[in-house]
Amino acid sequence: MYLYGELPIIKQKFRLVNKLMIMPNKSIEEFNDYRVKMNDRIMAQDNKVLKRFWSLDNQTYQDGALSEKTKELLGLVASMVLRCDDCIKYHLSTCYELGVTTDEIFEVFAVANLVGGSIVIPHTRRAVEYWDALGEG
Amino acid sequence: MYLYGELPIIKQKFRLVNKLMIMPNKSIEEFNDYRVKMNDRIMAQDNKVLKRFWSLDNQTYQDGALSEKTKELLGLVASMVLRCDDCIKYHLSTCYELGVTTDEIFEVFAVANLVGGSIVIPHTRRAVEYWDALGEG
Amino acid sequence: MYLYGELPIIKQKFRLVNKLMIMPNKSIEEFNDYRVKMNDRIMAQDNKVLKRFWSLDNQTYQDGALSEKTKELLGLVASMVLRCDDCIKYHLSTCYELGVTTDEIFEVFAVANLVGGSIVIPHTRRAVEYWDALGEG
Amino acid sequence: MYLYGELPIIKQKFRLVNKLMIMPNKSIEEFNDYRVKMNDRIMAQDNKVLKRFWSLDNQTYQDGALSEKTKELLGLVASMVLRCDDCIKYHLSTCYELGVTTDEIFEVFAVANLVGGSIVIPHTRRAVEYWDALGEG
Amino acid sequence: MYLYGELPIIKQKFRLVNKLMIMPNKSIEEFNDYRVKMNDRIMAQDNKVLKRFWSLDNQTYQDGALSEKTKELLGLVASMVLRCDDCIKYHLSTCYELGVTTDEIFEVFAVANLVGGSIVIPHTRRAVEYWDALGEG
Amino acid sequence: MYLYGELPIIKQKFRLVNKLMIMPNKSIEEFNDYRVKMNDRIMAQDNKVLKRFWSLDNQTYQDGALSEKTKELLGLVASMVLRCDDCIKYHLSTCYELGVTTDEIFEVFAVANLVGGSIVIPHTRRAVEYWDALGEG
Repeated sequence: MYLYGELPIIKQKFRLVNKLMIMPNKSIEEFNDYRVKMNDRIMAQDNKVLKRFWSLDNQTYQDGALSEKTKELLGLVASMVLRCDDCIKYHLSTCYELGVTTDEIFEVFAVANLVGGSIVIPHTRRAVEYWDALGEG
Repeated sequence: MYLYGELPIIKQKFRLVNKLMIMPNKSIEEFNDYRVKMNDRIMAQDNKVLKRFWSLDNQTYQDGALSEKTKELLGLVASMVLRCDDCIKYHLSTCYELGVTTDEIFEVFAVANLVGGSIVIPHTRRAVEYWDALGEG
Repeated sequence: MYLYGELPIIKQKFRLVNKLMIMPNKSIEEFNDYRVKMNDRIMAQDNKVLKRFWSLDNQTYQDGALSEKTKELLGLVASMVLRCDDCIKYHLSTCYELGVTTDEIFEVFAVANLVGGSIVIPHTRRAVEYWDALGEG
Repeated sequence: MYLYGELPIIKQKFRLVNKLMIMPNKSIEEFNDYRVKMNDRIMAQDNKVLKRFWSLDNQTYQDGALSEKTKELLGLVASMVLRCDDCIKYHLSTCYELGVTTDEIFEVFAVANLVGGSIVIPHTRRAVEYWDALGEG
Repeated sequence: MYLYGELPIIKQKFRLVNKLMIMPNKSIEEFNDYRVKMNDRIMAQDNKVLKRFWSLDNQTYQDGALSEKTKELLGLVASMVLRCDDCIKYHLSTCYELGVTTDEIFEVFAVANLVGGSIVIPHTRRAVEYWDALGEG
Repeated sequence: MYLYGELPIIKQKFRLVNKLMIMPNKSIEEFNDYRVKMNDRIMAQDNKVLKRFWSLDNQTYQDGALSEKTKELLGLVASMVLRCDDCIKYHLSTCYELGVTTDEIFEVFAVANLVGGSIVIPHTRRAVEYWDALGEG
């Protein structure tokens, strides 16, 4: 019958809604999908300045006199004191892939809190939640 | 039967929830309704300084030595570098009504990204999504 | 039958979803639960600098040459001009418990709008909504 | 002889130069003179929005549900976390005229440092220097 | 005699010192000399990301869907709300060369004050002084 | 005679004034002297929150999961994107003592410019000038 097939899906969706209400962070996958979709849209417009700026942004974190890891930590702390949640998530993801430890991440958070003040605290909460979610895969 | 009447509405709501999860931007209508409702609430409190400030805010963008269109572009770029998503949406709506083209909007985005840096990128994504939604009516 | 027991809960959840879409502010309880949960998580990591900073943050608003009430108003206006919604909610809650009146709160909002400019307006909307919700218990 | 009349003035000017190099803050009088001169210049241009905004700025700090003193403290802490040295000086001058004590001022500084972080420290140094200069007449 | 030759130069220098104390803005020429000198120094280090970013910064303001003049006004208002005095001076110079009128400039200042708040006022004073100095050549 | 003793000192002072006008950065020594003098003044007031915050600020950069050098680079990039010249100078001095190379410093500058945008450029100029002055001892 129609309802038996429908209900499990309903339940599945409720779990998603429920999760959305408990977790202020959008899920990792959702965050990445949105980024990719909108980046594609923006590149399609072919504004040369924007394209070159975004390409340059990627070059900035490559190995050089400082390692890629150190540069990602720099990008993370800069994003935290400027309080850009999406930028924080992006750098947390890269840090995770580069094998940064949780103690190291918390020391970056500590610098960000001291330099940027208590207004960085709410962003620290969301950053820790996202970092833990990365660890849980 | 009860369930036959209920389910289509359930489905309709799921679509809304689903849309909410895909699109980080609240819908255009929802954004405007909230603005109007809260503005009414705030005006009702009768704080003279707030009332005059908000009234002055409206006068700022009227035609003068510079056209209304140019001033709205100024309001937009200022909102972007200060990273105020709601302000960006407001100015995008007015720009849309004034016939600003997508290429012009993207040049404002380019200036905002260069002046304000990569922390403006997530706001640019949401701004483009909102601009496209305005175009789809 | 299974469905009769399920449906009222479904409806209950839809109301929550619906509320979520009308009210951009997360509910008071939800906001507090998340704060407590993440603070516990962060304290558990035992980063000494973060722990001391957060403890110091609490001491800052205690009675001294200035009253706790005045200091909470200072915390509120600082949070508004720096546009930190979660910080605003926190100070609004404490102001509410200390018996600050709605007219006093709006005068803080007025100072914040004048000093910080029209980019503070969207935060004022959300702050007024939260303040009213505190009053409705 | 010409030189005898000239030299004391030379010495006087050297003292000024010397003071300028020791003290990063421009003197109180100099600060006020510049403000008045430029405000007159700007009002003379007769831009209505600017004129109304500046007039509204003055009304913001008048006695109401909150006292003028409390509002000046709000203006001070907002100026500190936004790191506007000239705004800080202006509010410090008014606070001084209203009889705010040094202990009260330091508690405002403490809130500003905690909320705004260590980047507020250099502004705190200059603010303390200016506050002390106000006390020395 | 030695002193007769010396004194006119002394006086000349005193005038400079005196001017320095009255005018907080460094002179136009001094500002440009410093910019050129330090830009040369920085380019000589050959950091590729910095070089490309600065080059891209120049491309941003070229004629496109929006005119160079409109883009310079966008750069000016963005610099004002972000309160970057040197950036303001740079865009004022270019605006002056492009024939922007004083009434137009003041309308940009008005938008910047409304969007960015009263903390923009001290920057407006210095901007007006610099703009007037450009006019006096 | 009186004047013969006086004049060499006059000349010496003119050189100082002249240097002040050419170099926007106050000298390294002058910067440090002012910091120490004002820190002493502030500590003397005995505001417990300020004292603990400043003490905590020092602990933040000590060796831990991340090295002192990495933390100083984090402090530097955070100071740059928040555009705090005095904070930049402080971290540059510590980086210099820790043996950070000029190429490494420029990579921090590059991250700061990309994340924070072209408004960081004027601070980069002053930072490079200060860094070079540290190298010249």
